[in-house]
Amino acid sequence: MSGPPFAIGELARRFGLALRGDPARGIDGVGTLAGAGPSQLAFLANRAYRAQLPATRAGAVVLREADADAAPGTALVSADPYLDFARIAALFDRRAHPAAGVHPSAVLDASASVDPTASIGPHCWIGPRAVVEAGAEVGPGCQVGEDCVVGAQSRLVARVTLVARVRLGRRVLVHPGAVLGADGFGLAPSAAGWTKVPQLGGVRIGDDCEIGANTTIDRGAIEDTVLEEDVRLDNQIQIGHNVRIGAHTAMAGCAAVAGSTRIGRWCLVGGAAGIVGHLEICDRVTITAMSLVTHSIREPGEYSSGTPLQPRRQWRKNAVRFGQLDMLARRIGRHPQEPSDE
Amino acid sequence: MSGPPFAIGELARRFGLALRGDPARGIDGVGTLAGAGPSQLAFLANRAYRAQLPATRAGAVVLREADADAAPGTALVSADPYLDFARIAALFDRRAHPAAGVHPSAVLDASASVDPTASIGPHCWIGPRAVVEAGAEVGPGCQVGEDCVVGAQSRLVARVTLVARVRLGRRVLVHPGAVLGADGFGLAPSAAGWTKVPQLGGVRIGDDCEIGANTTIDRGAIEDTVLEEDVRLDNQIQIGHNVRIGAHTAMAGCAAVAGSTRIGRWCLVGGAAGIVGHLEICDRVTITAMSLVTHSIREPGEYSSGTPLQPRRQWRKNAVRFGQLDMLARRIGRHPQEPSDE
Amino acid sequence: MSGPPFAIGELARRFGLALRGDPARGIDGVGTLAGAGPSQLAFLANRAYRAQLPATRAGAVVLREADADAAPGTALVSADPYLDFARIAALFDRRAHPAAGVHPSAVLDASASVDPTASIGPHCWIGPRAVVEAGAEVGPGCQVGEDCVVGAQSRLVARVTLVARVRLGRRVLVHPGAVLGADGFGLAPSAAGWTKVPQLGGVRIGDDCEIGANTTIDRGAIEDTVLEEDVRLDNQIQIGHNVRIGAHTAMAGCAAVAGSTRIGRWCLVGGAAGIVGHLEICDRVTITAMSLVTHSIREPGEYSSGTPLQPRRQWRKNAVRFGQLDMLARRIGRHPQEPSDE
Repeated sequence: MSGPPFAIGELARRFGLALRGDPARGIDGVGTLAGAGPSQLAFLANRAYRAQLPATRAGAVVLREADADAAPGTALVSADPYLDFARIAALFDRRAHPAAGVHPSAVLDASASVDPTASIGPHCWIGPRAVVEAGAEVGPGCQVGEDCVVGAQSRLVARVTLVARVRLGRRVLVHPGAVLGADGFGLAPSAAGWTKVPQLGGVRIGDDCEIGANTTIDRGAIEDTVLEEDVRLDNQIQIGHNVRIGAHTAMAGCAAVAGSTRIGRWCLVGGAAGIVGHLEICDRVTITAMSLVTHSIREPGEYSSGTPLQPRRQWRKNAVRFGQLDMLARRIGRHPQEPSDE
Repeated sequence: MSGPPFAIGELARRFGLALRGDPARGIDGVGTLAGAGPSQLAFLANRAYRAQLPATRAGAVVLREADADAAPGTALVSADPYLDFARIAALFDRRAHPAAGVHPSAVLDASASVDPTASIGPHCWIGPRAVVEAGAEVGPGCQVGEDCVVGAQSRLVARVTLVARVRLGRRVLVHPGAVLGADGFGLAPSAAGWTKVPQLGGVRIGDDCEIGANTTIDRGAIEDTVLEEDVRLDNQIQIGHNVRIGAHTAMAGCAAVAGSTRIGRWCLVGGAAGIVGHLEICDRVTITAMSLVTHSIREPGEYSSGTPLQPRRQWRKNAVRFGQLDMLARRIGRHPQEPSDE
Repeated sequence: MSGPPFAIGELARRFGLALRGDPARGIDGVGTLAGAGPSQLAFLANRAYRAQLPATRAGAVVLREADADAAPGTALVSADPYLDFARIAALFDRRAHPAAGVHPSAVLDASASVDPTASIGPHCWIGPRAVVEAGAEVGPGCQVGEDCVVGAQSRLVARVTLVARVRLGRRVLVHPGAVLGADGFGLAPSAAGWTKVPQLGGVRIGDDCEIGANTTIDRGAIEDTVLEEDVRLDNQIQIGHNVRIGAHTAMAGCAAVAGSTRIGRWCLVGGAAGIVGHLEICDRVTITAMSLVTHSIREPGEYSSGTPLQPRRQWRKNAVRFGQLDMLARRIGRHPQEPSDE
């Protein structure tokens, strides 16, 4: 996390921020308000951390105008400190970028096509008719299956599998263990057992999407499973076949979407939330953590299900009563003094 | 998804279906009712899509007798259109089957045994005493650990790990990222911390099972974890050690079954449903999505837990009341006018 | 599960247990009370299985003093039969340990450092500045990324990915498919879309931790994600960035912890339970399966959320009433005969 320092004045100029304090101070990394040292940059975006500002030892702090007077040292004033911090912090992400070219241990099908500016890591397999575009990076241990496309500047970090007919746009980032384009879960029942329904569609991932570690996105049964641009999926998310997710929608870890559901743009899906199949969710819907969506949603807003956490002894009494709730409600309803103004 | 066409009359004959329309029409792929073109086959099984039938441009449609008159063009009449469509669609699944033999980059233990008609892909490892039977296909990046058996005609799509003592039956299909035979979660507590309980059993998977992407099935502590034949598991499912799952049971994505539970035949477990350990679930039980099963089930039927999704403001008020439910119920119960006929 | 037998008298001596019966009896494996044969060792710890004791055919049984008289044959008397069984059973875990050294198909960065007593399996990649310490075992298909450390005697079973800046302590066991050190899910929103927040921290895993198959632990945004010593994580668990988990805490499969939450020591988190971000959970808290924790917990004890499983028809009626609960409660509250002593 350390490297050649940037003068804070140079950072102010480059990111268009007002500077309060010493422009010559050198910054060689980032830290938290509580933990940063005198050569590190911190930020204050969440009001909850404001109490830490006066005592910070950070070399400089990105913060709002309103907080600038409370900063003990150099400050970069921003209308959106978290966003500007994110942009500046990228300067300190000194990952070793692999050289272009194909590692000798990788195996390429004769019909695969790899741009000479792309990088293919150790122990990768690039299958029939697969395409890896300019500047793309396929990390160690990936499989890029038949008819898949890794778009320009996209990166498969390591051990990612694109099974078949998966097309990534540009600048897509896929984390380790993700599986895109596995068979959707399609089964036709009969008295003799299950008959597999062939999954003949593919997966299309828009530009600038990010797919978390061990997340799975199945390919469509007939048409494609689609993520529009700038969709952000955390780890261990499951996306069923034929799902369509609108641009800029973000989902937290362990969320799951069943087959053929369509989700709008700018939605936020909380951790481990579930959405059953064949629904339509409109734009700008927020689903809170571990909620289950069982019907389509046509109004933007925030939605929840579940019950609050309680000490188990209390919870158990209430849970038993949940099982009697209809009976209890009918008792209330029958009562002669029942109020009628609800 | 396109290839040499089949005459629709030939398809009718091969699958034993009545034909209405032109037997010479060529079909070279499949499509949805709404999206199929004149050389594609569509189907109508779910009543919800019936409105799309009159306007379909599909070359032919598989449908029920009752719907045949509404078809604008050629129709294949079936008692079970979804099942017959699944069978016909398999003709258009033109996956490149790898040639038999072991890829030069694969590593085989000296004591492993691979049938000459099996295929072992790039970067696979086949461990001590492992067996790969006739016609089996081990895709790129798989590990087949000690004492594992990949049964005849089974397929590990890519990057599947069988850890130890995992025996797959015939025609088993395992999707990428699945891990079968990892240690069960067995720990003995003491004041000094946890002591690991060795996991000395294995995993047995019956014929015709399908295991989804990133699904995990632990091996037993002493005896085996068992899936009987034709069990179908979607993606990201977790099966604990010593679990037994009956034939033809199917589970949707992200379901989880804790250790030593036994599930019957022909059960359906919804997405992200949970079943705690040491239970018995009888045959033909359906658990709906995200329900939690905490006691054994002895009657076939459908079971649920949880609360309905609501706009968060409403939900919050109701959730607070859930926490008071026992108190509220006792108020009702004490009431002098309490009805006694419930 | 069978090998050269141990005399039961030798086992009694080695583990400090009192023997009742024939010290010369040979034991060559383990079994359940119901399934063990005359050369196998069984155990009785859970009262629920006591009825199986009189009929067991096991060569010997590890059990409590109080149960010893009911044993039909040889008994090893223990104050903690499960713990002592775990220790003895380890003798029968005859896994083939790979020889020290680097497999010729593995790829090591020139700046990586591997102890000569460590083992690196087929198709592994050891990245820039990565370190594999003495006696560590890196199984087939693993990636150990830049600046990662695999501590002494630790084992990556197979196909594990350490992405960047992941430091494992000693004797850490990581199961296949686990991904440690992937980017945390940090995004700054703006009208134009999401901006990725660089994840510049790492992951630190204490001594004697165990990480389950397909579990994911993200690296910190600025500081590290931390597991203290002897933390035990089952399969498919998701740990967000900047989380800290105290020593001896254990989590069952599919649990998830969102970013920046701190969990105490000796906690137990049930299967598929969720803990939202930025909370503090004190020591010795138990969260039951599929509960959602949305506020900090300051008192040790057991906590739950959710509703009980019911036949769907009953459940549906009650669930509808949940949606009316605040209204129903207000009716009760307004009632003139409302009791005042609650």
